[in-house]
Amino acid sequence: MADAKIFLSESEMPQAWYNIQPDLPAPLMPPLNPGTGEPIGPGDLAPLFPMELIMQEVSMERWIEIPDDVMRIYTRWRPSPLHRAFALEEELGTPARIYYKNESVSPAGSHKPNTAVAQAYYNKQEGVTRIATETGAGQWGSALSLAGALFDIEICVYMVRISYDQKPYRRLLMQTWGGECIPSPSDRTNVGRAILAEDPDSPGSLGIAISEALEDTVGREDTKYALGSVLNHVMLHQTINGLELKKQLAIAGEKPDMMIGCVGGGSNFAGFCFPFVKDKLDGQDIEIIATEPTACPTLTRAPYRYDFGDNAQMTPLLKMHTLGHKFVPPPIHAGGLRYHGDAPLGSLLVAQNVIKPRAFPQYVGFEAAVTWARSEGHLPAPETAHAIKAAIDEALKCKETGEEKCIVIAYSGHGHFDMASYDAYLTGNLIDYELPQEMIDEAMKSVPEVPEP
Amino acid sequence: MADAKIFLSESEMPQAWYNIQPDLPAPLMPPLNPGTGEPIGPGDLAPLFPMELIMQEVSMERWIEIPDDVMRIYTRWRPSPLHRAFALEEELGTPARIYYKNESVSPAGSHKPNTAVAQAYYNKQEGVTRIATETGAGQWGSALSLAGALFDIEICVYMVRISYDQKPYRRLLMQTWGGECIPSPSDRTNVGRAILAEDPDSPGSLGIAISEALEDTVGREDTKYALGSVLNHVMLHQTINGLELKKQLAIAGEKPDMMIGCVGGGSNFAGFCFPFVKDKLDGQDIEIIATEPTACPTLTRAPYRYDFGDNAQMTPLLKMHTLGHKFVPPPIHAGGLRYHGDAPLGSLLVAQNVIKPRAFPQYVGFEAAVTWARSEGHLPAPETAHAIKAAIDEALKCKETGEEKCIVIAYSGHGHFDMASYDAYLTGNLIDYELPQEMIDEAMKSVPEVPEP
Repeated sequence: MADAKIFLSESEMPQAWYNIQPDLPAPLMPPLNPGTGEPIGPGDLAPLFPMELIMQEVSMERWIEIPDDVMRIYTRWRPSPLHRAFALEEELGTPARIYYKNESVSPAGSHKPNTAVAQAYYNKQEGVTRIATETGAGQWGSALSLAGALFDIEICVYMVRISYDQKPYRRLLMQTWGGECIPSPSDRTNVGRAILAEDPDSPGSLGIAISEALEDTVGREDTKYALGSVLNHVMLHQTINGLELKKQLAIAGEKPDMMIGCVGGGSNFAGFCFPFVKDKLDGQDIEIIATEPTACPTLTRAPYRYDFGDNAQMTPLLKMHTLGHKFVPPPIHAGGLRYHGDAPLGSLLVAQNVIKPRAFPQYVGFEAAVTWARSEGHLPAPETAHAIKAAIDEALKCKETGEEKCIVIAYSGHGHFDMASYDAYLTGNLIDYELPQEMIDEAMKSVPEVPEP
Repeated sequence: MADAKIFLSESEMPQAWYNIQPDLPAPLMPPLNPGTGEPIGPGDLAPLFPMELIMQEVSMERWIEIPDDVMRIYTRWRPSPLHRAFALEEELGTPARIYYKNESVSPAGSHKPNTAVAQAYYNKQEGVTRIATETGAGQWGSALSLAGALFDIEICVYMVRISYDQKPYRRLLMQTWGGECIPSPSDRTNVGRAILAEDPDSPGSLGIAISEALEDTVGREDTKYALGSVLNHVMLHQTINGLELKKQLAIAGEKPDMMIGCVGGGSNFAGFCFPFVKDKLDGQDIEIIATEPTACPTLTRAPYRYDFGDNAQMTPLLKMHTLGHKFVPPPIHAGGLRYHGDAPLGSLLVAQNVIKPRAFPQYVGFEAAVTWARSEGHLPAPETAHAIKAAIDEALKCKETGEEKCIVIAYSGHGHFDMASYDAYLTGNLIDYELPQEMIDEAMKSVPEVPEP
């Protein structure tokens, strides 16, 4: 019998990240200055990011070397294992071969440290002593807190208040790593104070938290800003995952017929599939499926438009699939998938039909997650459950047709800090949200009219 | 630079468990029938366990083959990685080389599934359809629920009520895997009803929960009982860990100078060190250190005596280090270390001076855990923190003496379901317990006077 796990040795690890920008099937539209409507330049971003990350953001180099210090930290948990889901295959009775690339083995329990460590490194290199950021469910805030501990950088996390209250364990994880965690909206910023003045009980949103972190950053000499998804350099750092996967599949003697992940901002998915997108563009027959919740259907139901990344219109305008920057998604448990937009790189590939999106209500995601847990054992994050649901659907189709497809799942994280959501599912208290078209139309009114450059 | 992780391939996995019984430095005293004072035989245990496990309990075979079906499940997460703790070494500035064998990678997050899977397998083989057990903090209950899901066996877990209330996430983990979880004392058993009649708000104890699970078992045809520690066959199944470790250390070119683990019942520690105990008895210079909490100092302060394993005196008498079966340990966060006794095999080796015990208050354990998390990244369980504390102490001694010792830690589990205890530590709300001698003397009164056979 084949091995249940395919490991790489540390010496086999990819030594460079893969930058997809030179290989895109269409030009990536530049971020725009909302005031002038002109493309922004590196200088505009200098108050926010260290210059090395800004250069990565716009780089046309295909390969960007991973610094030794980042590599040394990666080896604490990387290369992450590629598992064959034998038990799920047996449970479903499918002739498909199902694999999953397991990013849950990092200390933070997800793919997020791949970029958190890299970002902390470049900040450290340029003498930054404090980083501000935002977090929704807490995956990103905890990953950056971990990276801050490793590089001795102070981390300040604005956490969406409803998650801060509902997910105390994620906050504690940040604090254990030494991060400061502030419920947002807060009285630390003008943005926060204005919202609290209107509504002292505001539950907050990711858009608001981004605005607060940005205001915190521009107001302080010692502070830079970090984003856990959406931007090109974040996608870049995540490609360590897909590059490892490529080597692991080769060891297993496999070529993927189907690659499935979940998309919030889209960084795990990008890292997982971008190294294979080039193969697909070169003619290889791979279906690449991005899953998302019906409660926040950016890829399946939103147009490809220029919009702000945050609620308070502080970011540059980004060309992406967007439901409008004022959109506040329903409170589904997959907090990591509650963002009004998507990464420009992933959005472009969806618009170009290279990546196919698919949306699911959260209930069927949890159903799939429990099937998974009772066969494979491991407990997936609610975000990851969306990818598992799609993979089970496809494996069952193979059962009907007899096709022996190779299906690879991006297992982005574990659900150890999401047990309350399993509770809701097991006790029948899970609410599903299908957005009526009028709600989407209303939200879309916040997308600005921008003449494309 | 040496690799940060040493993996074995699945084909290098040990194919048999190691049974230490033929290699003990002194005879293991048999379990006694409390009524007759005579050694019990396999037949006495038949109502509780499948015969194959009973035979393992008394076996004098050095090697016992691991069944294929168990092996196939082990490969979902085994061989578990051996890590070099480079970052901790650097943080401490020690010349010692620190390794840790990481059992937190199992779906349940600890070593417990090593025996849960084996026990479920042998029960399934003998047609058992339901297993009753108890759990303290929930590590064992969740591991057995996982194993029940994999072998399609109904699992019923009596969980100490105070943990049931305080650790809802552990209970949810059991339920996600399909296990039934009942707060103990419960109204399901005579034992439970009697205690509730006296004290409807009883917080419960592990001894009481064992009594309830035993009563549940003997009252039903379809049900057997399972124990997650203490017994010989449990120690046996855990040796997969130490046997892997042996091969991994050989790959790293290392011989351990010091092996450190934490001990509740002692199964993780046994599995970790028993394959090395033989080397030590054969003359190799290895210090083997068992750590425990000062709040439940069975190895450091309790005598080696015959006692009951449970509160209601339903078990056979076992020769072990014991604080008395009526002893209810203070509510420290390391729930897995709150047991009044210890495994007979480990107890014998401590009595024979082969294993050296050492006790720590929980505060210094958490201090060590946070040092660990902020350097190594991973978040240890409160139980595991005791071993980390001792390892840090030893590494700092090496710093003073310049000794380049090889120190290996049994990293028994992660702390993802124990964040409330980190909260208590971080907010200064952790209570330390040193037991006054009078309290130990009082507890010891429950140890029966038994003439040794």
